[in-house]
Amino acid sequence: MATANDDDVKIQMLKADGVAHEDIQEEPSGSEISEPIPGVKRKGRNLFFNDGKSRIDYILAWTRPEKEDENTEKAKKARDIFHHNLQEEGLQLELDDSDPEIRYMKVHATWEVLSRYGEILKIKMPLQETIVSADIQKKYSKWETLEEENPVKAVSVQIWTAITGLFKRFRAPFELDSSIVPPMAKKYTLAFSRDREYMFDMPINKDEFFTVSERCRIVDFILRRKSFGEDKNQAFSFGIKKMLADGFYSAAYPVHEGHWKAGSAMNSRKLLYDNWAHWSKFFKIQPLDHIRDYYGEKIGLYFAWLGFYTQMLVPASIMGLIIFIYGIAIMGDSYPSIEICDPKLNITMCPLCDFQCPYWKLQEACSHATASRIFDNNATLFFAIFMSLWGTLFLEFWKRKQAVIQYKWDMIDFIKEEEPPRPEYLAKLADTAKTKVNPITGLKEPHLPFWRRRFPTYLLSYSVMIFMASLAIAGVVGVIAYRVSTLAALNLLHDDGTVRSNSTIVKGTTEVIYKNASLVTTITAALINLALIIILNFIYSKIAFWLTDFECLRTQSEYDDSINIKLFALQFVNYYSSIIYIAFFKGRLVGRPGDYNMVFGARQEECEPGGCLIELCIQLAIIMAGKQIVQNNLIEIALPKLLKLAKRLYRRKFKKETAEQKANMAAWEKDYELSVAENTSLFQEYLEMVLQFGFLTIFVAAFPIGPLCCLLNNIIEIRFDALKFTTDLRRPVAEKTADIGIWFSVLYAISRIAVVSNAFIIALTSDFIPRLVYANTYSQDGSLVGYMNFSLSYFNTSDFDSRHKPPHWDEVQICRYRDYRNPPWVEEKYEYSQAYWHILAARFAFVVVFENVVIVITSLIAWLIPDVPSKLRKKIRREAYIASEIVIRTELMKARGQSPAGSLLDSIISKMSFPNLPSKDNGNNVSDLRKRGKAEITSVDDDNIDA
Amino acid sequence: MATANDDDVKIQMLKADGVAHEDIQEEPSGSEISEPIPGVKRKGRNLFFNDGKSRIDYILAWTRPEKEDENTEKAKKARDIFHHNLQEEGLQLELDDSDPEIRYMKVHATWEVLSRYGEILKIKMPLQETIVSADIQKKYSKWETLEEENPVKAVSVQIWTAITGLFKRFRAPFELDSSIVPPMAKKYTLAFSRDREYMFDMPINKDEFFTVSERCRIVDFILRRKSFGEDKNQAFSFGIKKMLADGFYSAAYPVHEGHWKAGSAMNSRKLLYDNWAHWSKFFKIQPLDHIRDYYGEKIGLYFAWLGFYTQMLVPASIMGLIIFIYGIAIMGDSYPSIEICDPKLNITMCPLCDFQCPYWKLQEACSHATASRIFDNNATLFFAIFMSLWGTLFLEFWKRKQAVIQYKWDMIDFIKEEEPPRPEYLAKLADTAKTKVNPITGLKEPHLPFWRRRFPTYLLSYSVMIFMASLAIAGVVGVIAYRVSTLAALNLLHDDGTVRSNSTIVKGTTEVIYKNASLVTTITAALINLALIIILNFIYSKIAFWLTDFECLRTQSEYDDSINIKLFALQFVNYYSSIIYIAFFKGRLVGRPGDYNMVFGARQEECEPGGCLIELCIQLAIIMAGKQIVQNNLIEIALPKLLKLAKRLYRRKFKKETAEQKANMAAWEKDYELSVAENTSLFQEYLEMVLQFGFLTIFVAAFPIGPLCCLLNNIIEIRFDALKFTTDLRRPVAEKTADIGIWFSVLYAISRIAVVSNAFIIALTSDFIPRLVYANTYSQDGSLVGYMNFSLSYFNTSDFDSRHKPPHWDEVQICRYRDYRNPPWVEEKYEYSQAYWHILAARFAFVVVFENVVIVITSLIAWLIPDVPSKLRKKIRREAYIASEIVIRTELMKARGQSPAGSLLDSIISKMSFPNLPSKDNGNNVSDLRKRGKAEITSVDDDNIDA
Repeated sequence: MATANDDDVKIQMLKADGVAHEDIQEEPSGSEISEPIPGVKRKGRNLFFNDGKSRIDYILAWTRPEKEDENTEKAKKARDIFHHNLQEEGLQLELDDSDPEIRYMKVHATWEVLSRYGEILKIKMPLQETIVSADIQKKYSKWETLEEENPVKAVSVQIWTAITGLFKRFRAPFELDSSIVPPMAKKYTLAFSRDREYMFDMPINKDEFFTVSERCRIVDFILRRKSFGEDKNQAFSFGIKKMLADGFYSAAYPVHEGHWKAGSAMNSRKLLYDNWAHWSKFFKIQPLDHIRDYYGEKIGLYFAWLGFYTQMLVPASIMGLIIFIYGIAIMGDSYPSIEICDPKLNITMCPLCDFQCPYWKLQEACSHATASRIFDNNATLFFAIFMSLWGTLFLEFWKRKQAVIQYKWDMIDFIKEEEPPRPEYLAKLADTAKTKVNPITGLKEPHLPFWRRRFPTYLLSYSVMIFMASLAIAGVVGVIAYRVSTLAALNLLHDDGTVRSNSTIVKGTTEVIYKNASLVTTITAALINLALIIILNFIYSKIAFWLTDFECLRTQSEYDDSINIKLFALQFVNYYSSIIYIAFFKGRLVGRPGDYNMVFGARQEECEPGGCLIELCIQLAIIMAGKQIVQNNLIEIALPKLLKLAKRLYRRKFKKETAEQKANMAAWEKDYELSVAENTSLFQEYLEMVLQFGFLTIFVAAFPIGPLCCLLNNIIEIRFDALKFTTDLRRPVAEKTADIGIWFSVLYAISRIAVVSNAFIIALTSDFIPRLVYANTYSQDGSLVGYMNFSLSYFNTSDFDSRHKPPHWDEVQICRYRDYRNPPWVEEKYEYSQAYWHILAARFAFVVVFENVVIVITSLIAWLIPDVPSKLRKKIRREAYIASEIVIRTELMKARGQSPAGSLLDSIISKMSFPNLPSKDNGNNVSDLRKRGKAEITSVDDDNIDA
Repeated sequence: MATANDDDVKIQMLKADGVAHEDIQEEPSGSEISEPIPGVKRKGRNLFFNDGKSRIDYILAWTRPEKEDENTEKAKKARDIFHHNLQEEGLQLELDDSDPEIRYMKVHATWEVLSRYGEILKIKMPLQETIVSADIQKKYSKWETLEEENPVKAVSVQIWTAITGLFKRFRAPFELDSSIVPPMAKKYTLAFSRDREYMFDMPINKDEFFTVSERCRIVDFILRRKSFGEDKNQAFSFGIKKMLADGFYSAAYPVHEGHWKAGSAMNSRKLLYDNWAHWSKFFKIQPLDHIRDYYGEKIGLYFAWLGFYTQMLVPASIMGLIIFIYGIAIMGDSYPSIEICDPKLNITMCPLCDFQCPYWKLQEACSHATASRIFDNNATLFFAIFMSLWGTLFLEFWKRKQAVIQYKWDMIDFIKEEEPPRPEYLAKLADTAKTKVNPITGLKEPHLPFWRRRFPTYLLSYSVMIFMASLAIAGVVGVIAYRVSTLAALNLLHDDGTVRSNSTIVKGTTEVIYKNASLVTTITAALINLALIIILNFIYSKIAFWLTDFECLRTQSEYDDSINIKLFALQFVNYYSSIIYIAFFKGRLVGRPGDYNMVFGARQEECEPGGCLIELCIQLAIIMAGKQIVQNNLIEIALPKLLKLAKRLYRRKFKKETAEQKANMAAWEKDYELSVAENTSLFQEYLEMVLQFGFLTIFVAAFPIGPLCCLLNNIIEIRFDALKFTTDLRRPVAEKTADIGIWFSVLYAISRIAVVSNAFIIALTSDFIPRLVYANTYSQDGSLVGYMNFSLSYFNTSDFDSRHKPPHWDEVQICRYRDYRNPPWVEEKYEYSQAYWHILAARFAFVVVFENVVIVITSLIAWLIPDVPSKLRKKIRREAYIASEIVIRTELMKARGQSPAGSLLDSIISKMSFPNLPSKDNGNNVSDLRKRGKAEITSVDDDNIDA
């Protein structure tokens, strides 16, 4: 596994012949810290101790103090105790103090330590091929071919082969070259045990048995659990994280495996860079097994999820694009927009604002209404249903995918270990006299009484949260005010107060601006909104972390959960509130001419005659695309790049660092300069994607090309993230996790909210229902002819309140406005008309039907699609059956006094990465069998199973 | 465990001194069948072999053939092979052929067999008290008392003690006397292992180590897996179930533990009879641990669930009763009913049927409308919300309860074993040439190709299902026809065609009948419905089993699932369709006078002026109560009792059986006469309860005393079921199951359907929304004055179609009908009025709001209530932590060359009934320690953990 750079050919050759390393396992553990040999400055990408044999598994770095004082003394003492404890545990240390500023302690785990902890951590290791393939794999294939042949079957098999062949050919361009990125087969694994070492697939050099990421995990496990204090009160002086927090170390990290740059020798990191992180591979399926191998299961699972999500976006994008193209195609020829654009109808509309605004002609809204048809047509309803089902299918298929990954990565019976308290928690409460014995670990820990400390902090924390959320809403209100005033100003700017007629020809830019007044306002407002969102976003993340620090939470996962909830809630409000306002509130409680509902003395915004949907669409497009471009690309990518460049320039200028010097840097020195791989960073990635999923599903009815935008963004996102992990971050410690955790529930909740939201958008925001009601009930011939007239009410201008009369109000007798109210000439004038109630009933009926039907269908889908693919389930059941069957037969044979010959295979299979299998060890028999060899076992097993 | 009857004092004493049994474990296995000793006819409740030592664990019975033929020869041969195989497995057999008709083979499992299979089946057995309490239990208490004292805490502890004390005192009358029914503490258990026998809580007599139900389970496990054929093709001649199906045995069962009748000596069965099944204990909490001990986890879990459900019904009943009483209290004083009952208004209503029916006066509907107010008031809305939340709370709390039970009964890591094919399946397909190797077990099995055999049977099966379901719907239609015609006939009977005025006084029964025409019709119709339902129910269960047999399903659980789905679907349609019709369809598509919608040439039913809700309520009451009385009590209880009585009379008369003979019967002979404990019977119990839960939640808005009825029914149900299990059925084999399976999902689905259904009942069926709309919009002063007038439309009788004119139609100019339509004097006469659309919009808006709000609240509740109580979770985590901690420390000590003294405790705790703990065995060390004793281990452990 450990590969060396090209300038270290010697080391590589030593490894290749497999001799030099052979004796590592016999080295005595707990040797003294190797003193650096003066003059021998082995630099460059060297991953070994000075002896050229012991692999560097971890680096502990601290800055050389400028002057000695009490603190540095304390730090030194803590480090000494810590190092001593590490050595006592069996780890080997070697100091590198060649750097003038930073000292590095190299940590190496010997075979003794690795094997001991491999057993404790129950690390699943692959079994010897000979044992596994001879007995189990062979049987699989035998069973599968034992089915009887018949002609119908043969034909169907042929067809099936043809289909899968086609599928494979279609898939081929997306797959990585298997000669460069070798596929990793699922290995039959067993929790490692030193007693049964002979069973495992042991390389000639034992040091290569555990993979590099497993070695790091083991060392990390030890580092996190060793004390660095003298007192028994362990919780306060416990673990590397606390030492980093106390500043006793400046960094602690495993080293990367090699150079990623072109021209370097091949290594795991370069393989990932070339085939995963490189732009040229943007359309390829990710090498997930390799990612897992290098970065561990947690990061592997994130990329598996992201890749799966991106793949699932493909059908949604195609469908969205079709809907969009259909919308453009039918845009011109619908009666509502024809009628709006028809100058012959010559409909005079009531003013859009009080006092200054004049009357206006309906056909001025023509372009707006026509564009609106792209999104507001019958296909939208279909697309909303489609996307609801898509959301469910996505989640259901992910469950299956996850099950397969869990099986392949041996995580079926994974359980999280008990977490220690966070170092920041301990540090903060170090002076608190109140301690309590933790009921689980039995360690003394500082205790925060609920009512006197916990409750006030929560109260404060959530009050601030609510305040911050209201800031976002205030921002939305501000933008509304901007929109209202701008629209009024634009109207005023253009017109001197007379009613505009068709013949009026106004020239110049003013005209252009005016013509698109509402469009300009909408777009600029959305851009202001976006700017506000990005600023607030920045503030929010600062505040969320600050508040969560303040809450003083005990464990890292409590802390993470708290941050998750805060950031998700704040960002949800931040991103979605303006959109929710436009989708569901804008233009709903406006009142009517002559009796507008005033808010703070101002009239509310109205929707255009084409409906609010087009505005919603613009808002969505700008915020969604803007977020992705500004947030993801500029802030996440361009900014770090710039910082890095600045840093390099600074160093070249002030430190006078030469290229030679740089090339001569040791691997750990180079890695020291990379950014820290924080464990919150993955959370940010998830959060971003979950918010995107929200945009995608909650408002999809208004923005059918949303999926396509997301797809394009994600294709870039995957490679950017990959690039970050391979080139910009220190190597993270491989963490294990069996699923995507809380995010699955959040996605589920979003998919449910989406159903309701889409129902409401179609029912309330789009003109779908009024058109339907008109065509079915009020229209003469079932067509939409006359719909525009139907949708506008009449207003007698003499009924204007004297305070709100527009300029020259008496030039027009009757103006029209968009609502369903009685005309002035009936008794109950301006009351809601029957059509209003009729349409309202239809709207709500639609919501009821849509919601319940979609929920029933999605529940059915979720119920019908099993969470674990039936093939995988069969596999697991089969293996479980073999295992338990062998136990019973072996036992019976023993009881009868026969030789319990199956017991080796028994103990192999029974512990083989499937949970809850019987664990029977017959120490004596195993060693017996070991001598006899494997051929015999296989034959006995055949008799046992096929009987 | 094995207790003997009072007439077997000798045996009991033998057991008590613990000597006679001591040597059983040393008995050689596989002895020949003990020949019955002639003349020594040991009868009575004797649970041992003739040697007085070997306990009878199972009985295999077959009838002595009347004449020898080929079949009896075949049966004899099969039995012989089977018996031989059982003996080879180590079971002991003894024949009892003293009965002239039936032969009994007594089966005894020796210690050797029990311990071997105890290990194979991973039966969790209690550890020695000394090991557990000294180390773990003690630590718990130490940790818990280590918290610091302070005065505030002291006060709060006092208050807490007072509250729990009060709660205990309140609970006391419901608890069983602990001196009679000793509570069973959770024991610390470990999967049994013969190598670690010394760790377990071994009684002096080893034979008493495994409980009786565990012994039965082990024997049953062996019986189910032994072959009785000579050929290798095992699947066809495999297991006791197939032998029973082939008629080679007439019965196979474990024996009950003693007499339950008064005066018998105490035994487990009598304890259950006295304290669980007896009527006098109907208000007591069930002795669940004892039930589990005797009947196994599956039956125990059913009663735990039933008991929990019944307890949860208490608050719902109280609330329902309050709502009901409130309804009665306000019944008289609401404007709608006052106005209906007011003779001064003198409103003439349009006829209720065509041709014959006359006009009628509104105040005739007075009583109906008044009664309707009991259920149709604002409290109903509150109650519907309350019951939706109740349903969620019930399911959430059940999850917690189940988690506690799983922990206490050691079922946390329970996994079902692989099932063999059903004997019926094999028997049916014995002649099919087509076989296939089962991919999981590797056995050859008959194979049904999907398209040629499976698909047609499914198609047929589900076609019949749909046909049967349509029968139920046809029944509903029939009842509607009955109701329509009866109402018409009653109207005709009373009246000669003139308009009845207030002054008309008609005397005699006709008047009474007429006065309550609609009530009588409703009630008789509901009774007919009930009769139809019960008849169909009977047919349905026959047909469901017949169809499922026909489907030829492979395993028992596939079969059970198929039956479950069929019966549930059919019964759902059967019980609910008439109710759904009344709740949601009746009177909705009636049309209007002069233009009725005709179905098969007849007018549809209308709702009374009081609304359909009262009718729904009556229907519910009759079907729900009727089902419970007729179905549960008459058919389930009275019928079997009668049959039993008839059987006894028959025997006394024809067989001349004397009381003495009866008393002299052996235990197995008596048990032979009991009914078979079928594994489908529990399913029937669940189905019944789930349907009840459906009634309770889906239609609760219309029937607030529903919960009370269910509560009363269930209190009886528990004791009836208990009685059945203790006295009427053979002892069932203890089965294990970790949860209530599919039923939880069904309950969840019902609780969701209930939310939608209640929203619709309140919105559409009750008058809640029209009243609300009237009061808020159309009323002059916000009161309901004039509501009755508002809710009736006008009809000009001259507009009657000539074909539908009532007799003497011209006596009245204007009649009224219940709808919201325009009066005859406006332009669009008889079209839906604005009020109609307004109310309809309000109705649907209510559904949307109710549904979403309730679903959000219930989801929140479900999310906030953790599935596992935090105390239990802490316990599990604590135990897991200790276990893994000890492993690490022990390993390190070993690595340092120190004595690995903790390893005994380690291996104890690590395997202690918590899943996924490390399983480390150090064979040598364990045996070392065993010699050294336990005191030392304890001390070492102290150092290890508290460091």
